[in-house]
Amino acid sequence: MKKTLLLTPGPTPVPEDVLEAMARPIIHHRHEPFRAVVEEVKEDLKYLFQTGNDVLILASTGTGAMEGSVVNLLSRGDKAIVVQAGKFGERWTEICEAYGVEAIPIDVEWGKAVDPEEVRTVLDRNPDARAVFLQASETSTGVRHPVREIAALVAARENTVIVVDAITALGVFDLPTDAWNLDVVVTGSQKALMLPPGLAFASLSEKAWRFVKESNLPKYYFDFAKEKKNLAKNQTAYTSSVSLIIGLQASLARIKEEGLENLFARTDKLARATRAGVRALGLELLAPEAPSDACTAIKVPEGIDGAKIPSLIREKYGVAVAGGQAHLKGKIIRISHMGYVNTYDIISGLAALEFVLRDLGFPVETGASVKAALEILAS
Amino acid sequence: MKKTLLLTPGPTPVPEDVLEAMARPIIHHRHEPFRAVVEEVKEDLKYLFQTGNDVLILASTGTGAMEGSVVNLLSRGDKAIVVQAGKFGERWTEICEAYGVEAIPIDVEWGKAVDPEEVRTVLDRNPDARAVFLQASETSTGVRHPVREIAALVAARENTVIVVDAITALGVFDLPTDAWNLDVVVTGSQKALMLPPGLAFASLSEKAWRFVKESNLPKYYFDFAKEKKNLAKNQTAYTSSVSLIIGLQASLARIKEEGLENLFARTDKLARATRAGVRALGLELLAPEAPSDACTAIKVPEGIDGAKIPSLIREKYGVAVAGGQAHLKGKIIRISHMGYVNTYDIISGLAALEFVLRDLGFPVETGASVKAALEILAS
Repeated sequence: MKKTLLLTPGPTPVPEDVLEAMARPIIHHRHEPFRAVVEEVKEDLKYLFQTGNDVLILASTGTGAMEGSVVNLLSRGDKAIVVQAGKFGERWTEICEAYGVEAIPIDVEWGKAVDPEEVRTVLDRNPDARAVFLQASETSTGVRHPVREIAALVAARENTVIVVDAITALGVFDLPTDAWNLDVVVTGSQKALMLPPGLAFASLSEKAWRFVKESNLPKYYFDFAKEKKNLAKNQTAYTSSVSLIIGLQASLARIKEEGLENLFARTDKLARATRAGVRALGLELLAPEAPSDACTAIKVPEGIDGAKIPSLIREKYGVAVAGGQAHLKGKIIRISHMGYVNTYDIISGLAALEFVLRDLGFPVETGASVKAALEILAS
Repeated sequence: MKKTLLLTPGPTPVPEDVLEAMARPIIHHRHEPFRAVVEEVKEDLKYLFQTGNDVLILASTGTGAMEGSVVNLLSRGDKAIVVQAGKFGERWTEICEAYGVEAIPIDVEWGKAVDPEEVRTVLDRNPDARAVFLQASETSTGVRHPVREIAALVAARENTVIVVDAITALGVFDLPTDAWNLDVVVTGSQKALMLPPGLAFASLSEKAWRFVKESNLPKYYFDFAKEKKNLAKNQTAYTSSVSLIIGLQASLARIKEEGLENLFARTDKLARATRAGVRALGLELLAPEAPSDACTAIKVPEGIDGAKIPSLIREKYGVAVAGGQAHLKGKIIRISHMGYVNTYDIISGLAALEFVLRDLGFPVETGASVKAALEILAS
């Protein structure tokens, strides 16, 4: 019997009622019934982002919103500090360089969080840096960065903004946009928002909008000012992703119903249970000191061919997880616990992990990981 | 009873089996089952585009593929000839200007097609123009441009490419990419492809790929070379729009089953019937000389408040059509006949048009438009 459980750190499972909402007949993106959807979604996005500002809705993946943050806030020759602690940190640098922005990288070992003191030092050394780019949750390593502390450093500087990739952070753990003075927060649809890929979002502070006015980098499709003007009329600048936004209405309704506090507590519990389960098997976490509740990165034990795990666990045991990226390929596996995931999904994922490790010759005490996880999940 | 018929020139209705396909549980964009979908879709897109080249799949609306065509083929300071015969022609100019490309507009009265002789003259006067940008079908006016003739002029020039916005042309009428030497052809999902908005496509000729190598405009999200490399491995550079691409698999299967020739003949018949119906009411077409089979633009008769028609016809009579854009606002209405539209949809649209015109005080011979349309549709 084929039945697959999706535990990858994006895309994540989409709830059945959201799938149903998206299967409704298409309506026109400039007509009243759709504008009413956008109006509702706008309010619910403010709740999710914990902001009073409108959240832009883009027809792209999260990378489009990352690019939009660079091209709408900066100018040619600007300097920007980039926290590079994984594949997505490197993406900020790549985007900056593509547009002639000088990226000043803070290189952090993959699996570690950046030290805010290091950011302070680099900021002090580069008082002309216009932006600090980082991930709230670095998906490639399962690390959570100290966004609050770094944002406080940036808030004190009038000519620098903080731009947070919250693609696997928003709706995963507490990240209050306004309270922490996060100037730009971007996310995508296929993570904690429980939607198919194809939508991206960006919130901008007043300070960030001032940067937008001064920016001279070229842009057209990702033109934040144009999107802001359209959003005020409950529409998007170009054709809206009608179905995905109708799905968004349904997924945000779920998030509001659960409540952010409960959502964060549930995700935290699932994440702690996963980590406990992994440790009970004698495995090591890649990021034991600063684990993100989005996904758990597990080191493949010595002597085991890690590159085989993702396909074997999916094809033989019906659980989809992710492997490592770049130099971590074959070295880690990543299990997601964000979005539409519950207790039974986590113990199923751990059981499958036990199966596949035993197949590959790693000594496993059957049920040990599930037992350890349940001790946390039962409480 | 509320039942709405969507006859707007995008989005267009999505077939029920395509909606169903998109409502399936999400699968991961890097795993084998999804790559098999991409492999199939790649072949079917070649059939639709009538090309031997791979067709890039982008997570954006059609405008993203338009921007991609500019930033991947041109360099700062390049000259480009733009056919400006409507809102979407102007979009090419706006994109060029956003990126520092000098746009040389050929202004054409809205409702008319460009004269290839005029393009020849402008090309002769600007032998250094690197590209000619135009629409195959200008959606804002319902005009079809003579792409074949213009492409022949460009094909003779080694250092100029033709870039065709086929967003409301591909899958509507015959536009053979390779046979006509169309260097770049872009389209979107929400027109003849019968999908929700959110996917864009671009095919590039060998000549166009040579231009890509020489281009120095900044790009990241819309990086065609990166997409090409990924597509060779049956994936996209960034997270794929999984659901929409699975829907695409279903809609392309429909297109293949009907066959391009039959599809074009059906659409042509529906378009001719619509035009005949409109004329039978004593109304004028905006583009009588070069009508596009994508949508019929109808002039609102003198003395009638055209701005009221789109909302009245939708709210009171359950048929969604489009009004005019920019200076044609209130002056025209547009009825689409592309995609998942049949005989009964067209006569329903015409009947609703009769209803609303009579409400607004225009003398209507009841059933005249439907009768005229049926005379064509019955043959």
